[in-house]
Amino acid sequence: MSDASAYPVDETNRVKRLHERGSYDRATVHAILDAAALCHVAYVVDGRPYCTPTLFWREGETLYWHGSSASRMLRNQSEGEPACVTVSHLDGLVLARSGFHHSVDYRSVMAFGHARIVTGDEKLRALAAMVDRFYPGRWASLRPATQQEIKAARVIGMAIEQASAKVRDKGIVDDEEDYALPIWAERIPVHNVLGAPEPCPRLVAGVERPAGLAGFREGRTLEDALREAHAAMRP
Amino acid sequence: MSDASAYPVDETNRVKRLHERGSYDRATVHAILDAAALCHVAYVVDGRPYCTPTLFWREGETLYWHGSSASRMLRNQSEGEPACVTVSHLDGLVLARSGFHHSVDYRSVMAFGHARIVTGDEKLRALAAMVDRFYPGRWASLRPATQQEIKAARVIGMAIEQASAKVRDKGIVDDEEDYALPIWAERIPVHNVLGAPEPCPRLVAGVERPAGLAGFREGRTLEDALREAHAAMRP
Repeated sequence: MSDASAYPVDETNRVKRLHERGSYDRATVHAILDAAALCHVAYVVDGRPYCTPTLFWREGETLYWHGSSASRMLRNQSEGEPACVTVSHLDGLVLARSGFHHSVDYRSVMAFGHARIVTGDEKLRALAAMVDRFYPGRWASLRPATQQEIKAARVIGMAIEQASAKVRDKGIVDDEEDYALPIWAERIPVHNVLGAPEPCPRLVAGVERPAGLAGFREGRTLEDALREAHAAMRP
Repeated sequence: MSDASAYPVDETNRVKRLHERGSYDRATVHAILDAAALCHVAYVVDGRPYCTPTLFWREGETLYWHGSSASRMLRNQSEGEPACVTVSHLDGLVLARSGFHHSVDYRSVMAFGHARIVTGDEKLRALAAMVDRFYPGRWASLRPATQQEIKAARVIGMAIEQASAKVRDKGIVDDEEDYALPIWAERIPVHNVLGAPEPCPRLVAGVERPAGLAGFREGRTLEDALREAHAAMRP
């Protein structure tokens, strides 16, 4: 039976350890992806693994990322290299009463597909989306890209062929008999938080902060700002 | 000429794009590693890349990580699988006056070596370090590990054979002529911040929070707490 709301599952993306934490639901996967700015891309060169961090975003079932970090992967190929794009959020440190039950709360996604260099009109659209996905409406306000810049930029695209999400959000879970022990246990939340925006010291007098950046304010979590910006993307 | 303070450089770890951001200095690499709890491990199974997030720590030139996430990688091997361990810190969003100069400030490390399953006395020491590296002195205060738990736990070790660090910390850099344009530009700092610790609701009456956790307090950055904890590790 095929289920359009979930990714197909086989040995590639099946969650093996602690499988009760796993999910193949597209909406779950998308929510974890859209709350992040940074992904880690794994690829293979000459049989060896590489993992590079880079900015990315999602449009439907396609992931895009800034390709500078993929220069090794794609130096000889224009498309079709297998890649794994992983996104993770560390949500909390979990200090239990035994070492074995120390853990972290987290959300993560592994997405599998084949990476290709984005070209032509899709590249022009992607270069704008690379800015607008994070800062709604900003691309149109910028100094237009030159032909040289467009040529120098590299965007990688990957259709998500398979994916899995893994989530732990249950805080402290000890063996039942261990709760009676006189041992301290706690959960420590962790958040990625925005600091106060630092305007460029060389701003032209009178230039105001654009309304599109209002979501990026001191003390807010990065993921709340990113989710809001993603929702504002034109379809 | 060999330089003991730096990692050997070849095609594996040479920083190719924006190489002015690269470094092979061991102290620089270590500082970036020791400020993080989470790494992303890339490995190859049947010619395909995988990238899994997991907790890790450094002891000298060895990286250790919790091996559940490496179950695919090591299911058939007890040692010697090539791996790439990547750590990244997102420090700031950089909004420039052109799309091309939009960027982020970051610190990252890619470390290369061969992953092996840790066994015997080294495993016992590593299971303690897996707790104490994050929470100084905590292992001795916990309910002791059972033989079954020790057997079930999996720790992976990797000697760092080569590594590179890449750092961007310069904020906004626009083309000189673009500074005169009436376009807003700013840098938005991003920090991984600890929330207020949440004591377990089932604590035994009278149990106090251990002094070793004092470094984990609300509002502090995770990396400050981790650096302090790493410095407290017994050599």
